Amino acid sequence: MELEFLGTGSGQPSKFRNVASIALKLLDERNAVWLFDVGEATQHQILQTTIRPRKIEKIFISHLHGDHIFGLPGLLSSRSFQGADKSEPLTIYGPAGLKSFVSAALRVSDTHLTYPVNFVEIQAGTIFEDDTFKVIAAPMKHRIEAWGFRVEEKAHAGELLIDKVKADQIPSGPVYGQLKAGKTVTLDDGRVVNGQDYLGPAQPGRVVTLIFDTLPNDQVAILAKDADVLVHESTYGQSKEERKLARAHGHSTSKDAAEIALTNNVERLVLVHISARYIGPLLKKFISDVKNLFPNTYVARDFDVVDVPFKKEHHGSN
Amino acid sequence: MELEFLGTGSGQPSKFRNVASIALKLLDERNAVWLFDVGEATQHQILQTTIRPRKIEKIFISHLHGDHIFGLPGLLSSRSFQGADKSEPLTIYGPAGLKSFVSAALRVSDTHLTYPVNFVEIQAGTIFEDDTFKVIAAPMKHRIEAWGFRVEEKAHAGELLIDKVKADQIPSGPVYGQLKAGKTVTLDDGRVVNGQDYLGPAQPGRVVTLIFDTLPNDQVAILAKDADVLVHESTYGQSKEERKLARAHGHSTSKDAAEIALTNNVERLVLVHISARYIGPLLKKFISDVKNLFPNTYVARDFDVVDVPFKKEHHGSN
Repeated sequence: MELEFLGTGSGQPSKFRNVASIALKLLDERNAVWLFDVGEATQHQILQTTIRPRKIEKIFISHLHGDHIFGLPGLLSSRSFQGADKSEPLTIYGPAGLKSFVSAALRVSDTHLTYPVNFVEIQAGTIFEDDTFKVIAAPMKHRIEAWGFRVEEKAHAGELLIDKVKADQIPSGPVYGQLKAGKTVTLDDGRVVNGQDYLGPAQPGRVVTLIFDTLPNDQVAILAKDADVLVHESTYGQSKEERKLARAHGHSTSKDAAEIALTNNVERLVLVHISARYIGPLLKKFISDVKNLFPNTYVARDFDVVDVPFKKEHHGSN
Repeated sequence: MELEFLGTGSGQPSKFRNVASIALKLLDERNAVWLFDVGEATQHQILQTTIRPRKIEKIFISHLHGDHIFGLPGLLSSRSFQGADKSEPLTIYGPAGLKSFVSAALRVSDTHLTYPVNFVEIQAGTIFEDDTFKVIAAPMKHRIEAWGFRVEEKAHAGELLIDKVKADQIPSGPVYGQLKAGKTVTLDDGRVVNGQDYLGPAQPGRVVTLIFDTLPNDQVAILAKDADVLVHESTYGQSKEERKLARAHGHSTSKDAAEIALTNNVERLVLVHISARYIGPLLKKFISDVKNLFPNTYVARDFDVVDVPFKKEHHGSN
């Protein structure tokens, strides 16, 4: 599980930061990539990475401002060009109006996608869940309808404690698989054993929270609680002047983001949606200011890859 | 008058060529830039040039395929961000349907442009004319409605032949301006002189023809006649196999373009919309093959700048 930052700028592209897009790479977990927001030229950024558009399984759109969606028609078209087929559907989660925009773009350009696209209009709560992941959306406060996301990996079952199994002289064979699945099994010698007694501790799943354009609001904390990585917009830095600008445009400051991280047991904070004004000495100050408040903060640059490790206390504990 | 090639690829962006866009820089002529087609990330390409989006006065769209228009909403938005105002309107010439696509994109993204945009639906014939330029459109043959363009600069009046004026002992003063304008003037000494007798030969204006996605068709020759520069799509090279592909997809080969240049007294041929397959040795062969047919051919790369000089026989003849 890795985050790859495809666009970390705000409003319009600059020489150093493209407009918004983040890839959540779940290659080990589900052989898939999820995208969060698709600003213009996201497909161009992807060309510089190892991400294959056919692997993109889901796209989540936080809101409909142009710097978050104008890359979507081109990305969908190129995924077609590159031969994605009927067995490679794509699901797009977004606010009302997204489907009609994408449909209009594909219709006017006479584009006929070679794979199915399923649009899901976001409602507050769980918007996706299967055996391995759950995605929760909550409404943000921006100039238009906007959503934040919490991606929860489900717990991994504990590993089979093979030494204990052998110590109890349970003969090897298919029964090991049943024990590993936590089932109760009757052995050939008549003993009844419970798999739960032979499993190490379950490994909690990881949590990644992604907060795009928003004013600070009480939903952010709910999404960010105990996150391994909180990705948060920080269009502006911490001065009074910057705070005023942030409020005027419906945005957050780095201080807003750090406070959320501090009060919600967040492991690591990654800032994105950085205004183009922050370059050189201004960027240095921006970074040091926020690290003073929450030391484990990283200000993402385009093409950065950030690993989402399992929590340390569970890592390799078996 | 210069052409700057912002995107010389076809279909989808590659690492080496972006999707279609060409800037015709008319900075000396009218302090303006005209764009032809606006594929995705055209505004990103512009960031790498000296072009200022506020200087873009006109945009011509050849057809509505995504690789020619998906950069338009973002470019228009950024032109707004950059402070273009009511005194900097933009006129967009394109096929029916373009206006509703752009309007849908701006509406869904809640974008309110700070400057006026005027849409002109292209009809065959003269689509723009003023004192200095004329633009003619003709229908192409592609998979959807498509247009080619001929940009004609109007002739520059001849220069005042100052030696002849002095030889005839015409006293200097405002009368020189009147003679330069070709007017008939009564001098203080009673002589009547005709400005036309004191002007060097008029300098013919330059002609740039731009042919985007099309099968060869008889309209191309009409647009290309005597062009100083013919920009022509050449998605494919010259082999039988490539020709078949070109025909199947509604495109031209480099041979098609060279033949048009040869038979229509074109000065210089510049090829664009090159398939991503042509890299390395294949690109070398592509280039040498077409130069064998029409030596003054240039296969454009992204960010190339091609000057459009006055015809030599008129240059500095006074």
